[in-house]
Amino acid sequence: MERAAIYHQPASHYAFSYDGSDLYIRIRAKKEDIKQVTLIYADPYEYDNGKWMGEKLSMKKIARTEEHDYFGCIIKPERRRVQYGFILEDFEGETIFYGGRGFFANTLVNLNTMDYYFKFPFIHKIDTFQAPDWVKNTIWYQIFPERFANGDPSLSPKDVLPWGSKDPSTTDFFGGDLVGITEHLDYLEDLGINGIYLTPIFEAPTNHKYDTLDYMKIDPHFGDKKIFRQLVDEAHKRGIKVMLDAVFNHIGDTSEIWQDIVKHEEKSKYKDWFHIHSFPVRYGENGNVENATSISYDTFAFTTHMPKLNTSHPEVQQYLLDIATYWIREFDIDGWRLDVANEVDHAFWKKFRQAVRKEKADVYILGEIWHDSWIWLLGDEFDAVMNYPFTQTIIENYIENKISPLKMVETINEQYMRYPKQVSEVMFNMLDSHDTARILTRANGNKNKAKLALAFMFAHTGSPCIYYGTEIGLDGANDPLCRKCMVWEESNQDLDMLAFTKQLISTRKKYQDILSLGDLTWDVSRAEEGLISFTRALNGEALTFIFNQASEEKKVPTTATHDVFENRDISGEISVPKESFKIVR
Amino acid sequence: MERAAIYHQPASHYAFSYDGSDLYIRIRAKKEDIKQVTLIYADPYEYDNGKWMGEKLSMKKIARTEEHDYFGCIIKPERRRVQYGFILEDFEGETIFYGGRGFFANTLVNLNTMDYYFKFPFIHKIDTFQAPDWVKNTIWYQIFPERFANGDPSLSPKDVLPWGSKDPSTTDFFGGDLVGITEHLDYLEDLGINGIYLTPIFEAPTNHKYDTLDYMKIDPHFGDKKIFRQLVDEAHKRGIKVMLDAVFNHIGDTSEIWQDIVKHEEKSKYKDWFHIHSFPVRYGENGNVENATSISYDTFAFTTHMPKLNTSHPEVQQYLLDIATYWIREFDIDGWRLDVANEVDHAFWKKFRQAVRKEKADVYILGEIWHDSWIWLLGDEFDAVMNYPFTQTIIENYIENKISPLKMVETINEQYMRYPKQVSEVMFNMLDSHDTARILTRANGNKNKAKLALAFMFAHTGSPCIYYGTEIGLDGANDPLCRKCMVWEESNQDLDMLAFTKQLISTRKKYQDILSLGDLTWDVSRAEEGLISFTRALNGEALTFIFNQASEEKKVPTTATHDVFENRDISGEISVPKESFKIVR
Repeated sequence: MERAAIYHQPASHYAFSYDGSDLYIRIRAKKEDIKQVTLIYADPYEYDNGKWMGEKLSMKKIARTEEHDYFGCIIKPERRRVQYGFILEDFEGETIFYGGRGFFANTLVNLNTMDYYFKFPFIHKIDTFQAPDWVKNTIWYQIFPERFANGDPSLSPKDVLPWGSKDPSTTDFFGGDLVGITEHLDYLEDLGINGIYLTPIFEAPTNHKYDTLDYMKIDPHFGDKKIFRQLVDEAHKRGIKVMLDAVFNHIGDTSEIWQDIVKHEEKSKYKDWFHIHSFPVRYGENGNVENATSISYDTFAFTTHMPKLNTSHPEVQQYLLDIATYWIREFDIDGWRLDVANEVDHAFWKKFRQAVRKEKADVYILGEIWHDSWIWLLGDEFDAVMNYPFTQTIIENYIENKISPLKMVETINEQYMRYPKQVSEVMFNMLDSHDTARILTRANGNKNKAKLALAFMFAHTGSPCIYYGTEIGLDGANDPLCRKCMVWEESNQDLDMLAFTKQLISTRKKYQDILSLGDLTWDVSRAEEGLISFTRALNGEALTFIFNQASEEKKVPTTATHDVFENRDISGEISVPKESFKIVR
Repeated sequence: MERAAIYHQPASHYAFSYDGSDLYIRIRAKKEDIKQVTLIYADPYEYDNGKWMGEKLSMKKIARTEEHDYFGCIIKPERRRVQYGFILEDFEGETIFYGGRGFFANTLVNLNTMDYYFKFPFIHKIDTFQAPDWVKNTIWYQIFPERFANGDPSLSPKDVLPWGSKDPSTTDFFGGDLVGITEHLDYLEDLGINGIYLTPIFEAPTNHKYDTLDYMKIDPHFGDKKIFRQLVDEAHKRGIKVMLDAVFNHIGDTSEIWQDIVKHEEKSKYKDWFHIHSFPVRYGENGNVENATSISYDTFAFTTHMPKLNTSHPEVQQYLLDIATYWIREFDIDGWRLDVANEVDHAFWKKFRQAVRKEKADVYILGEIWHDSWIWLLGDEFDAVMNYPFTQTIIENYIENKISPLKMVETINEQYMRYPKQVSEVMFNMLDSHDTARILTRANGNKNKAKLALAFMFAHTGSPCIYYGTEIGLDGANDPLCRKCMVWEESNQDLDMLAFTKQLISTRKKYQDILSLGDLTWDVSRAEEGLISFTRALNGEALTFIFNQASEEKKVPTTATHDVFENRDISGEISVPKESFKIVR
């Protein structure tokens, strides 16, 4: 038995409550090393004649990753307090007891030694991660407002270019605005999505607006507060939630606040609002040159235009929290996506959560974090993060053929094991964004591959997001090319892709509960030939997904009787064409 | 290479800042499997021609546990942001790269793939664990007030027993009070301790007072607020800190609040202050019998006398926070020890920390938790916990001979690896308390063993605590016998033990920085014969400890020239008598 690989940690994603009264318990061991894990548990205060009376429960193998097997079970301790340990048995019949103090021989004396156990001292509802209920049923649509639709040309900047007249450079303006979004809400409703995420809409000099000039003002080229209010109202009428982008890591250098420092330098009342190492901060002096490593104040990356805010300063905290609550209170927005969330301090985000949740109990808090985010997802900061690791894994298999199908499965399993179940349910899953090349371009224009990846994402737990234009076949390499103008002339749209996307969305909505909440069971027996199958099941209902990424058709025996995606009956065997998938039940 | 055993987790005790600008990085692997670990790290935004330029640093083996080797290093990222990965090499020369997305071949292409790395996105001072500076230099003395000294017999309960006239039962009163403590502060100053921890002193019917009747009143048998103020003032004059016991998990059933429920049942305005499953709550009805599993409301353990407070209720929170801040504000206490801290919700403790720290910036927050406490020690709840696992490990070797000396060393190493360095520095280390048998009794009266264990504890990082009476040889089995009256007649005191304890305390104070902050290097080459040696070193100064638990004398070659504990010069070799220790430099 490889003891060194066995791992469990209470009060983490290895032991968490889902509903405030149950307890999910997971343990990990070296792959193919452990045959059987038995949980032994009881109320820590319940004795009988000095003997601590534990109940035993056989744990189930719930995931296999590249290096590990995970076992899991769910218990419901009567008094919400529990101590527990594990009896592990390997394939050679060796057994051992594993608890909070390490490994002990599996003897009655040891099993009766309370001190050896792990503890989950008390399950508190208030400490239990709770994301807004609506998120897991949401299909997002990300909009980069400058490029979605020009609804009111009178708002456009002076140097605006004709819509779609060229591939965008980093400095181009095409005149997209909020009026354009509102005008296309019917289109989005028809597409089937029920949440829109807008990259920043507050006043800022650039087309991306991540260098905020004024957080309290809608960018005049996008509209005004009246126009924004109309957008939210019209979206809500259609059952579409609205999420905005909060750029709180840094401010734009054209903002009044930073300009006050540029003017008054160390005498500015705002000087402690930033992390300034030396004055002057004026551009061109004191090492303050774009992309230099010598900038005399902390910035986002190495850009002088984005001075980093000191979010541990009480005045800065109040300033940002007032902004965060204002847009909820006055405009009833439903979520905040937090830009560069991982570089802002945890103390601030904890205050942020308290402030915005007080304003609106079911507001969604989404952090932009590209890596493992467990520390932000303990229940007192974010609800979810942008799930780039998941994205990347799907792409590396279906798009880039950089990893094997089996490795993809094992990596995805590992990712789901990183978080409590309820976090996974509201993860923001997407294949591309304004910060990455578009999926179709990554697939070198192979639409089948893009479809496979999209369908695969939609089949998994977590709220999926479509980046504007994906549904009509928009392509584009890395920024700025991933920010092309949306194509509205039907003749230039990929209508097959549109129909496909609609079908995907409607299927997701039809089987929402199974896809959000259902258990997943893989069949990787044909992974080497490029065929992966899995079943999502909930309350006796099940859907089976078959993904064929090979370049030839595959015949798959099945007991399913209906092709859900194509809505036709099947029997005995199903044929899955090359680079395509089937959903059956 | 046993990949399945390799573990690292950012933003945990595997990657933490100590001072707000540095970063301690640890990684664990299977014991004796890895020869060399190299950290590769850089600013995540610093590229050169698309290549991410990492620096390399060789990591040091910092701890060996029963199953693992730990490697560690300290870096100071220039801009407080860093991404990092590990190159591991085993004893067969196999190397591999390990990062945030798992294991990859150690190739240049992989090392240049930013996405593969772990991230510590930004080091924030505000998120860095900071305990009060004074704690690591504190030697505690725990007092159970009812049994320490009867300073004012007029305060004593009617049925008070003559001091020390018998072994205590659970219901006896001997008249100890706060006057008695104040009167003996000179004794404590002379002993050398500089912090006292008092078990509860607020009004309560029992002798232990863990069933609070009124949190705002000193128990009348202990004194009053004037007497308590005098105690704190006199302690502070002597440089002695004062820590009180906050029993916030539950209240006493004689409290006005619970009595209101007993009287009005579901009509009580306090009914939501508790977790009541069904009414009535009156004793003897509805299953409400002492030690029954049928009690109709949540309690501490199974005692009807201690109804559990609903600390997620805003009114309860305010009530308890007002109490916590009141005693700091009005009486200038220096710390709160939190009873049954692990069964109270985290959300409450976070508010607690904010409230008490606002009142007094360097107040010490100590949780009563007997098990792994990482989740409470992330910097926003407690400063430390009562370090029972450490206690237990020392006792299992030196007192109970239940584990080998080597296993003790490996277990202690594992415990220090569980927490960031700054947490270990302020851990509350003790060998016994009002909740355990006394150390001398656990040693079956073998004073040498008790001394070994005490000296071993004093030699380690963490603030050590002496339970009242240990210094004069007080014994006692489990509660109630561990709560005997303090012996004040010199003729009945163990004066050898007293001299020993004083010497231990003065040695700790003389070498405070080395013992609090210094690195520890074990020599376990003679562990099998019961001889453990270790060196504590800081800034070029070093102390070596040699512990001989065998029943015969051991000769130990040494380059040290001075016996620090006995203050005499040595040369070449030192003789360590059976069941004793030496401290040399």
